[in-house]
Amino acid sequence: MTGRLTVVGLGPGSPDQITPEVSAALAEATDVVGYGPYAARAPARPGLVVHASDNREELGRARRAIALAASGRRVVVVSSGDPGVFAMAAAVFEALEEIPDPDSLDIAVLPGVTAMLAAAARIGAPLGHDFCAINLSDNLKPFALVEARLRAAAGADFALALYNPRSAARSDGFGRVLAILRESCGGERLVVFARAVTTPEETIATTTLAEARPEMADMRTIVLIGNSQTRRVGRFVYTPRSAP
Amino acid sequence: MTGRLTVVGLGPGSPDQITPEVSAALAEATDVVGYGPYAARAPARPGLVVHASDNREELGRARRAIALAASGRRVVVVSSGDPGVFAMAAAVFEALEEIPDPDSLDIAVLPGVTAMLAAAARIGAPLGHDFCAINLSDNLKPFALVEARLRAAAGADFALALYNPRSAARSDGFGRVLAILRESCGGERLVVFARAVTTPEETIATTTLAEARPEMADMRTIVLIGNSQTRRVGRFVYTPRSAP
Repeated sequence: MTGRLTVVGLGPGSPDQITPEVSAALAEATDVVGYGPYAARAPARPGLVVHASDNREELGRARRAIALAASGRRVVVVSSGDPGVFAMAAAVFEALEEIPDPDSLDIAVLPGVTAMLAAAARIGAPLGHDFCAINLSDNLKPFALVEARLRAAAGADFALALYNPRSAARSDGFGRVLAILRESCGGERLVVFARAVTTPEETIATTTLAEARPEMADMRTIVLIGNSQTRRVGRFVYTPRSAP
Repeated sequence: MTGRLTVVGLGPGSPDQITPEVSAALAEATDVVGYGPYAARAPARPGLVVHASDNREELGRARRAIALAASGRRVVVVSSGDPGVFAMAAAVFEALEEIPDPDSLDIAVLPGVTAMLAAAARIGAPLGHDFCAINLSDNLKPFALVEARLRAAAGADFALALYNPRSAARSDGFGRVLAILRESCGGERLVVFARAVTTPEETIATTTLAEARPEMADMRTIVLIGNSQTRRVGRFVYTPRSAP
């Protein structure tokens, strides 16, 4: 029996944003591996084994998935959004470096609708021009690097999508991020806080850097920062395609 | 009769990457508006009016879609990939600024799998850490701004996704882009050329900046540039989640 490891993105929340190929992979899986709340989004059926784990255990989860696939199981590793954006795909390849013949495994990555694009769609087109995606979690990198990237991106007038802006363990970092952005971009710059997009708990608020407060974000929030041209039209926010 | 304007992303090519909500919007449409090859991807059915137009006519297309929706039609504007990434959503909001009461129209944007994430998935997880997306087309911005953004992104060690690297009208610009990146990142940096991802014409090639040549890309190619940590494992390319 030949095993298979498929790393999939479930989109940000709504089943209406799960691609058909991801649904098909889930329908054929023997095992689903993922962070508890994401693993719970795989449709349950008799015989499907769900391996749910905690948030900080990406590498252990990846090793377990590889071992299951190597033993002949059809394993689907689930991420919210897209698996290649601050999610499980990189962890799986990190773990794959530990095995002797990585190409002996049947591995595929199936993309998904990443949270920043779902959030952008709900409010208009704030990422309609060049943009950067930055993970604000400093578990895996020094805050000095986050700061250097924020300043580089703001200095070159990129729009920004900020993932994982805030957690209980990092209550002050996002305040520093907002202060850096206010200094680099000015107070009038538009900011969108998009929480739990496409779920029943969705909230979306548009404000400015001058008015933005750290407590407007939590770990379920994506923060979008416009570039210098980003503007409102009616209830929407968008970034024009052209730059001066 | 109340019209509706829905701006959707069809994903990069395969029907298996079109989300259910986008398929539902297409099934309910009276009119589909888009660049010819993308409009042709909407499933044909009796009564569906397809308004296909040329590549450079985004704003005219957006105005036509708004006029149709205002007249009571259920209009779907199609983009390849995600509509908010270098695609039709920003053009629709630009056109929306021209009408007196933008909030009188029923407008929604439905996200899709954008080309850079589909391309990344096919080769592993090259965008697994902070990254920037840059549209290399200089139709709507000066090349000096493209260069400034490339240098800022490379200087802060972002991975990069480059859209629209090359066209017949811009045969030399991409060579300059590669030269700038070689200067900023060094010749060993990994580069992925992903063409026509998820279509029968798909080709994916991994090389280095030292070996990369402008003619490896055309307008159907997404170019992914790794950061300083990006590496190969087996047949895959990925960027680790952590940074030094």
